[in-house]
Amino acid sequence: MSPQPAIILLSGGLDSATCAAIAREQGFTLYAMSFRYGQRHSIELAAATRVGEYFKAAEHRIVEIDLRAFAGSSLTSELQVPKNRTDAEVAGGIPNTYVPARNTIFLSFALGWAEVLNCRNIFIGVNAVDYSGYPDCRPAFINAFAQMANLATKAGVEGNHIEIHTPLLHLRKAEIIDKGARLNLDFSLTHSCYDPSPEGLACGSCDSCTLRRKGFTEAGIPDPIRYCNA
Amino acid sequence: MSPQPAIILLSGGLDSATCAAIAREQGFTLYAMSFRYGQRHSIELAAATRVGEYFKAAEHRIVEIDLRAFAGSSLTSELQVPKNRTDAEVAGGIPNTYVPARNTIFLSFALGWAEVLNCRNIFIGVNAVDYSGYPDCRPAFINAFAQMANLATKAGVEGNHIEIHTPLLHLRKAEIIDKGARLNLDFSLTHSCYDPSPEGLACGSCDSCTLRRKGFTEAGIPDPIRYCNA
Repeated sequence: MSPQPAIILLSGGLDSATCAAIAREQGFTLYAMSFRYGQRHSIELAAATRVGEYFKAAEHRIVEIDLRAFAGSSLTSELQVPKNRTDAEVAGGIPNTYVPARNTIFLSFALGWAEVLNCRNIFIGVNAVDYSGYPDCRPAFINAFAQMANLATKAGVEGNHIEIHTPLLHLRKAEIIDKGARLNLDFSLTHSCYDPSPEGLACGSCDSCTLRRKGFTEAGIPDPIRYCNA
Repeated sequence: MSPQPAIILLSGGLDSATCAAIAREQGFTLYAMSFRYGQRHSIELAAATRVGEYFKAAEHRIVEIDLRAFAGSSLTSELQVPKNRTDAEVAGGIPNTYVPARNTIFLSFALGWAEVLNCRNIFIGVNAVDYSGYPDCRPAFINAFAQMANLATKAGVEGNHIEIHTPLLHLRKAEIIDKGARLNLDFSLTHSCYDPSPEGLACGSCDSCTLRRKGFTEAGIPDPIRYCNA
């Protein structure tokens, strides 16, 4: 049987890169999809592009997401404005790292591409263990999305089951790193920091850097990327 | 109780306009959302804007959707729009005007905006009776999306049920038109044609025009819009 296509959502971080390594190991031909939804993300997208190339993705689509759809809504409507925020918080509005319903939107775009490619497999590196409290990283959400996907699409109607693969769902960060290392993933390609330096160095102290460094330490594997404060 | 907000997906067609009329009648304050997704004509969006103004929407967001990722539908590419199809042909399968995962993507953006607005009601004018064979217009799809939405969001996690309202789901086209007329909807604001003339006149013979004209005839109500071939 010729290799089956799989769509892999690539953020440029180590979770999605490990997820890509797993999909490759399972024999899938990768179709990478990433999203541009804010200025600060060019470093992430550069990492996603490197990862896509590393895994010889057949194609890599970068989808623009229109964040203006959500920005500033509570400040411009008649709804109650949140109380006790500082001036800086009010001026800052919704941070450009936050997209409401993000995984729902990402997976919906992946689903559309899957239809066009006649592809029945979508990989997403969500994780329910070391996750940041987002409801759309939970197993119940993924299951509900898969059920919906199979009703939303031609493939589903025709009985060709679409599967949402989440191989990292129940792994701890150290286990993800260990898995990636066993699959010879080059972690130097990945980027995790929420607040990198202008040169693209990881800050080393944001939530994402902290989680990453702890994971590498626990896994007993050296982290090949450079940190500003290391 | 002050009016509750509801998001209404407006395409500019008569179904979504009637759906907006119903939401208004139910006392909701409307937040309109429309999508620019590479349609060959901006006439739909002009109609959606007119409908939003007619119903005094508190806000109207036009979201750019990057559908270049999934070329392959005649609504987003240069494929020919089918004309003068028989009822049997229309009933026979999913036509090439189908945009992959379109309603999934639209509802996902609506869900994101609902989170920002702290809004629990989303209206969409999908219809399972006179529908054109799109899988994502079926009741089972809508139910599955609602279930997923309540797992994807903070509101859902906190027990604030998000409802996807589909008041047209089981109505025939003539019944939708009758309902709109009873609510004093001005149908001249709406646009249904898949392939309008450069001046914006409806072609009169695509699936959408055929369905619309038949509906007005059956409802015994004059269609106020002009057609090229009328």
